[in-house]
Amino acid sequence: MEKVLSGMRPTGRLHIGHYYGALKNWLELQEKHDCFYFVADWHALTTNYEDPEDIIENRRQLILDWLSVGIDPNKCTMFVQSHNIYHAELSLLLSMLTPVSWLERCPTYKEIKQEQTNKDLSNLGFLSYPVLMTADIIMYNATYVPVGEDQLPHIEISREIIRRFHHLYSCEVFTEPKGVLTEVPRLPGLDGRKMSKSYGNAIMLSEDLKEVESKVKKMVTDTNRQRLKDPGNPEVCPVFDYHKVFSTEEEREYITKGCTSAGIGCMECKMILFKHMQALLEPIQERRRKFEAEITDINEFIKPMQDKANAEAACMMEKVRKALKI
Amino acid sequence: MEKVLSGMRPTGRLHIGHYYGALKNWLELQEKHDCFYFVADWHALTTNYEDPEDIIENRRQLILDWLSVGIDPNKCTMFVQSHNIYHAELSLLLSMLTPVSWLERCPTYKEIKQEQTNKDLSNLGFLSYPVLMTADIIMYNATYVPVGEDQLPHIEISREIIRRFHHLYSCEVFTEPKGVLTEVPRLPGLDGRKMSKSYGNAIMLSEDLKEVESKVKKMVTDTNRQRLKDPGNPEVCPVFDYHKVFSTEEEREYITKGCTSAGIGCMECKMILFKHMQALLEPIQERRRKFEAEITDINEFIKPMQDKANAEAACMMEKVRKALKI
Ligand code: SF4
Ligand code: SF4
Repeated sequence: MEKVLSGMRPTGRLHIGHYYGALKNWLELQEKHDCFYFVADWHALTTNYEDPEDIIENRRQLILDWLSVGIDPNKCTMFVQSHNIYHAELSLLLSMLTPVSWLERCPTYKEIKQEQTNKDLSNLGFLSYPVLMTADIIMYNATYVPVGEDQLPHIEISREIIRRFHHLYSCEVFTEPKGVLTEVPRLPGLDGRKMSKSYGNAIMLSEDLKEVESKVKKMVTDTNRQRLKDPGNPEVCPVFDYHKVFSTEEEREYITKGCTSAGIGCMECKMILFKHMQALLEPIQERRRKFEAEITDINEFIKPMQDKANAEAACMMEKVRKALKI
Repeated sequence: MEKVLSGMRPTGRLHIGHYYGALKNWLELQEKHDCFYFVADWHALTTNYEDPEDIIENRRQLILDWLSVGIDPNKCTMFVQSHNIYHAELSLLLSMLTPVSWLERCPTYKEIKQEQTNKDLSNLGFLSYPVLMTADIIMYNATYVPVGEDQLPHIEISREIIRRFHHLYSCEVFTEPKGVLTEVPRLPGLDGRKMSKSYGNAIMLSEDLKEVESKVKKMVTDTNRQRLKDPGNPEVCPVFDYHKVFSTEEEREYITKGCTSAGIGCMECKMILFKHMQALLEPIQERRRKFEAEITDINEFIKPMQDKANAEAACMMEKVRKALKI
């Protein structure tokens, strides 16, 4: 069975963008592969070291979000990166044979450094990030790593590090991973900008449905459609981007016709969307309530999975140390 | 009681240069401080990753050398760095807040890179070395770190990393270390060059005394003293450098007088030196034989000390994680 590894940073509750961007894919993957899903709390520190949010609480919320969408402890292995310190050991050992220039040349390195002007990303942890990520992946011999486009260069570095390791120490310890691009539908924020918790334009998976309804009602629409009698253009309307994800073919036809002919109002259009959101979120929130009531200690809850991950890592490290004769 | 931390890389058996350059000091320190002496096997990889020597065997030889000179398990804590993976965790966490520029600017970084032209030191592990060293030191709140002059900039980086940690996370977890310069007598190699195993001009602590005698007899002397009747100049003679370390005041006077007046031969002079070397090495080798016979498994032997170091490290990591709220 192919092994899958994927992680998320514990930076707060997840929104529907995370659902369609990653979790929906995770749900499918857990049905057919041996999946390792981890809370990437050390990764969070590579960029948020100056002001780490409350990682302990965020870890709990992240795992609850996973459980609430249906990520299943009986089907996959969920664990916390920082509770498996073999990842630090492997990362350190890999740092020995990784040229600094590979990291400096990584296209995301300079890009993100330039974009994130409000953060000081001149730290070693940020430069070394692809090495830590390599350790995460190859620790479990994961061959399938769902990634966004921006992560592909990191997977390439991972493959090069593996090849260098095998070449230097004349061994075949690791499996080369493939980065698999996840097809992600375009789901903008409620205001049409990129969806992000920090913009306040996201709908959280655990958000009260009354609040969701009110947010949907206030969503930005085709700005040329000021009054009911103005015809609109769904192709430039963020609400319609959501319909593309949430609604049926027939509903989209109905809306397109009604919008362009000024036959339906934006409120009706939005309520169709809300109905679908409700259908998505209600069972998620139902599950969340169940797990919240059940789980008093999240570390205790994931312990069997964490133990399994740590045991696999311990076993891999034996092989790595043997290859290095250390 | 002040805590002392010092390490040696496991790169083979130690020679008398190591004895006078470090171990003699370690022997004194263990009498009055709480000393942690560690086998820096990860450090060895920062520069020797391309062709790691047999680290497992070298660890054993290194600890046997320590024991043979009188480093005492009842007085200090000897442990192996790579058997305490908290050092990797702390190093990783410190990497988050360490600016790359501090490491690039470190005077030893570029110097060693330029000097060691036979090695590819463009690896991340070599750049990050001062961060790992900082983790080693502050893990035990060591305040006293015996160092060579070239290591002083690393201690300075350690102090800055500590200050940054305390500042960012509003805490006082670590103690700032002091790098204490060890006074090291000049002890050249047998041929007058720098003493180094790789030049074959060193006397190993465990070297057979017959072999030592023959090496001493072949030592380079004042090259102007070709024949017995030529007067010599002890100040330009490597043998006399050894007399400064090994012999008594009176012996040095006797030799100086005899050498400059061509009153004694170089062989007599060398045999005085050998007599002292023998007096140093005999009890060392006696102890080594005892320990070699006693110890079947070196890891088993150091286990109580390793456990103590690891327990202290575990305790420190609790504090560190708490400070980071991770
Ligand atoms: S009817 Fe729907 S698609 Fe058209 S502008 Fe209004 S919200 Fe957008
Ligand atoms: S007598 Fe001793 S000090 Fe003088 S040249 Fe010979 S070895 Fe050197």
